[in-house]
Amino acid sequence: MNKIFVVGIGPGAYEQMTVKAADALRRSDVIIGYTVYVDLVREHFAGKEFLTTPMKKEVDRCVMAFEEAKKGRLVSMICSGDAGVYGMAGLMYEVGVNYPDVELEIIPGVTAATGGAAVLGAPLIHDFCLISLSDLLTPWEKIEKRLLAAAEADFVVCLYNPSSRKRHDYLQKACDLMLRYKSEDTVCGIVNHIAREGQSEQVMTLRELRDTQVDMFTTVFVGNSQTKEIGGKMVTPRGYKNV
Amino acid sequence: MNKIFVVGIGPGAYEQMTVKAADALRRSDVIIGYTVYVDLVREHFAGKEFLTTPMKKEVDRCVMAFEEAKKGRLVSMICSGDAGVYGMAGLMYEVGVNYPDVELEIIPGVTAATGGAAVLGAPLIHDFCLISLSDLLTPWEKIEKRLLAAAEADFVVCLYNPSSRKRHDYLQKACDLMLRYKSEDTVCGIVNHIAREGQSEQVMTLRELRDTQVDMFTTVFVGNSQTKEIGGKMVTPRGYKNV
Repeated sequence: MNKIFVVGIGPGAYEQMTVKAADALRRSDVIIGYTVYVDLVREHFAGKEFLTTPMKKEVDRCVMAFEEAKKGRLVSMICSGDAGVYGMAGLMYEVGVNYPDVELEIIPGVTAATGGAAVLGAPLIHDFCLISLSDLLTPWEKIEKRLLAAAEADFVVCLYNPSSRKRHDYLQKACDLMLRYKSEDTVCGIVNHIAREGQSEQVMTLRELRDTQVDMFTTVFVGNSQTKEIGGKMVTPRGYKNV
Repeated sequence: MNKIFVVGIGPGAYEQMTVKAADALRRSDVIIGYTVYVDLVREHFAGKEFLTTPMKKEVDRCVMAFEEAKKGRLVSMICSGDAGVYGMAGLMYEVGVNYPDVELEIIPGVTAATGGAAVLGAPLIHDFCLISLSDLLTPWEKIEKRLLAAAEADFVVCLYNPSSRKRHDYLQKACDLMLRYKSEDTVCGIVNHIAREGQSEQVMTLRELRDTQVDMFTTVFVGNSQTKEIGGKMVTPRGYKNV
């Protein structure tokens, strides 16, 4: 049976990939992905054929992968982070109904939430929510409801896609919503370019986060009521009982 | 400066570890962890010294790591999954205030949410919450509030620690709470022994999940209103708008 690996390459590149992901890419004839991600892995997998499609051409990219697999070639479709977290795994199954002879194997990876958490210290540790602020495919009302629910129930919140050119004030809007339930002094953190060149991080309060300019390469962490700063790191305890 | 790597080894063992995690273990003089996790990696890192402490001795395990590091040895503290998701990273920073000369480097890994998702298909994809049903360190009222908030805001929910000998009916209680807002037909899935011997998975409805017996090696996934079954796989679309 023809096969496609759908591979999360982790937040950075080679080093943050799992052993299994690296093996899958080594075994593949062709590696397909968004241009930026292909450029992240290209040097480590010399001799492979690389195919790319630009952003917003995700369906075309899936079709390309299945068509290559139909020819009998072993294909890896790569995603940054984890293929199953705002990645291509779901769309591959949806497009895959037209290609019943091609089998998919999803190979998980380190997503920005856990990759960024490692840079900041230990902000997640306990129950958390992952929310994307992109309203391209989700109505803003739904995002708003989730932010409020997460804040009221005292989750740690990790925000993906916190800003873009068209949505420069979305992080501020999100902070204002969460401030209805979370204290201004809630410990927060941001990480830019996780595990890539130019990585930087900052720990701050929710009040400060509200007025911080971020971009599409930023992952944002908002603590729960127990999260604290220890020696410049953002740390959430394992629970609420004194142990 | 003395250094400790706090390493997430992924849900299974060697193959699911990142390249960076494997390098850290190879560089270390001593590898410390809960007995079960040490046994998962032992054969791949011959010649290392391995130290273990049993479950519930987490603080002792942290102290052991810092004491070894103080002697000038390069230490890896290992956790299954990701060290920052219900892992040891937070506690290491807390214990670390007593060891200002020891530096921590957190090395992220694939957590059960994304490792299990890859087995089931693509259940997460979009916004999701991770909730532990263990009330050892968290009051049940807080867990209940989070389950209700997550269900009402239509998050995909991933449940860790869904059951134990003392808490055999907790998954049923959790399902009953989520059923206040989620349909009985919500697509759900469970994975046992992710990436380990005896791995198994099952896709079912929320009504069926309610009456399913799980154990401490099970990770549970409850879909959002858009999650569907495609060819036996659990798949959540990328958003809510038709594209």
